[in-house]
Amino acid sequence: MKHLTYAVVGTGAIGGYYGAKLARAGQEVHFLLHSDYEYVRENGLRVSSCDGDFCLPAVSAYASAQDMPKADVVLVALKSTNQHLLGTLLPPLLHPATLVILIQNGIGLEADVQTWFPTQPLAAGLAFICSAKTEPGHIRHQCYGSINLGNYSCADASLFQTVLSDFCAAGIDAHEVPYLEARWRKAVWNMPFNGMTVALHTQTDALLQNPATRQLIYEQMMEVIGAAHALGIDALDERFAQKMMQMTDEMVPYSPSMRLDFDFHRPMEIHYLYTRPIAEASAAGFAMPRLEMLERELLFIDAQNTR
Amino acid sequence: MKHLTYAVVGTGAIGGYYGAKLARAGQEVHFLLHSDYEYVRENGLRVSSCDGDFCLPAVSAYASAQDMPKADVVLVALKSTNQHLLGTLLPPLLHPATLVILIQNGIGLEADVQTWFPTQPLAAGLAFICSAKTEPGHIRHQCYGSINLGNYSCADASLFQTVLSDFCAAGIDAHEVPYLEARWRKAVWNMPFNGMTVALHTQTDALLQNPATRQLIYEQMMEVIGAAHALGIDALDERFAQKMMQMTDEMVPYSPSMRLDFDFHRPMEIHYLYTRPIAEASAAGFAMPRLEMLERELLFIDAQNTR
Repeated sequence: MKHLTYAVVGTGAIGGYYGAKLARAGQEVHFLLHSDYEYVRENGLRVSSCDGDFCLPAVSAYASAQDMPKADVVLVALKSTNQHLLGTLLPPLLHPATLVILIQNGIGLEADVQTWFPTQPLAAGLAFICSAKTEPGHIRHQCYGSINLGNYSCADASLFQTVLSDFCAAGIDAHEVPYLEARWRKAVWNMPFNGMTVALHTQTDALLQNPATRQLIYEQMMEVIGAAHALGIDALDERFAQKMMQMTDEMVPYSPSMRLDFDFHRPMEIHYLYTRPIAEASAAGFAMPRLEMLERELLFIDAQNTR
Repeated sequence: MKHLTYAVVGTGAIGGYYGAKLARAGQEVHFLLHSDYEYVRENGLRVSSCDGDFCLPAVSAYASAQDMPKADVVLVALKSTNQHLLGTLLPPLLHPATLVILIQNGIGLEADVQTWFPTQPLAAGLAFICSAKTEPGHIRHQCYGSINLGNYSCADASLFQTVLSDFCAAGIDAHEVPYLEARWRKAVWNMPFNGMTVALHTQTDALLQNPATRQLIYEQMMEVIGAAHALGIDALDERFAQKMMQMTDEMVPYSPSMRLDFDFHRPMEIHYLYTRPIAEASAAGFAMPRLEMLERELLFIDAQNTR
């Protein structure tokens, strides 16, 4: 197979990291930037990483998707609060076989993008990474870094495998996972911790040290697992919830991405992290009262925080 | 019947108001004070009221229950976070027929006091009042002021009726109500609004203006009503929840007592307002997931707020 070309839509902490890794490994990667376009065009990207720092002094940077070439693979790493922008950002980048990989958190992302682009091959990218873009063109990768790819609608198995190989060749720990299970598996951690750290102005460690909120977090995880069961995903069970609790016990005190969005008065990703999974569970006859209550608290907090 | 004597345990915004009204009407009332004992002994009590201001230049004030005479009626208006003090505060005030009226919020208060004083006649006092003690000996009564009395274990109907008459003669809008129903009826408002104004650092009006929290408050009210049904109280229904929503829409923006406790870093009345009603509902087979989640959030907030 010929060498694939990549485009990164949303060159932030996540898109910037994976794109830079691919570019460093020799892949052709085109980056769409927003606030730090000028800086990156002149200075390139810099990655301070627990796995070793590196710089890309010259990257293929763009301020507008209109100016970008079509790509074989598009990595979408926008905040999902900006998902409505994809209707204008994606078309210039797509040929009929372009694989669009949504490296975003939540449930229902691929279904929506497929509605807007009915024949486009889509995949989910589940990133397990602590990283942040702290200044223009500078990504700080603190720990972890693996990515799981779930095939949503890519009929070209060879294309999908080549992308996996490209990620692995770039030094990224990448695996194929069953799409729906992987999205819900990640929601088991994301739904309790993202919202609760915002609702209680705290971090993961304090939530787990208080017996009342520790119990609540566990019950919320079990609501996600119950929803997954209702949707036919049997691989998750209470042992997985216990494992997530234990893993978080062992992590450094952590502010999930929604807490950072809150702190910086950015809109929070409530729709895909809460509203959509709750709606999908409800359609399958399963109620998530604790996470629905959290969603409503977050909607209130978001309205106060971004006005 | 001979003239009754009254004792007030907890001469704050509530106990001070009803005690002062009774004293002004000529009843013998003995007040147990704490922080403002010296001030009240020298200057008496002052009530600034929407119904007309008045002063009691000399009141029968005590710093210790040990020094007080026994009373025919004890009005308990302590914060329920101090309920453990009743074991020492009440005995000096009680003769075998003394009626103890618990003018406090929550569920399970009478059951506990009855355990500690198994043969004492008990009643519940449900106060509908906005008032605050803003400085020593000074009670500001802003609006409302009625009290409902529910008979828990007073076999002496004549005593109970005399208390009602005394309240009415003192210009207090007082009625007898069925005990258990009255406690749960008040919980329909108290459980959602007390905790949610703390959890979201807000007031009643903002909770009702945001569509997400308006819906949540309504669902929480319906959880209380569902619990009441499970306990055999049929008088409450969704029309009552709608009425409570509408009444609160028409109120001035309001901080319930738990929000004031939070603001002043005092312990919050989580046990009798949340833990006990949730446990009673659970024992009757009814789950209150939203209010249980709120309880857990409040336990976390309380631990951070009072340390």
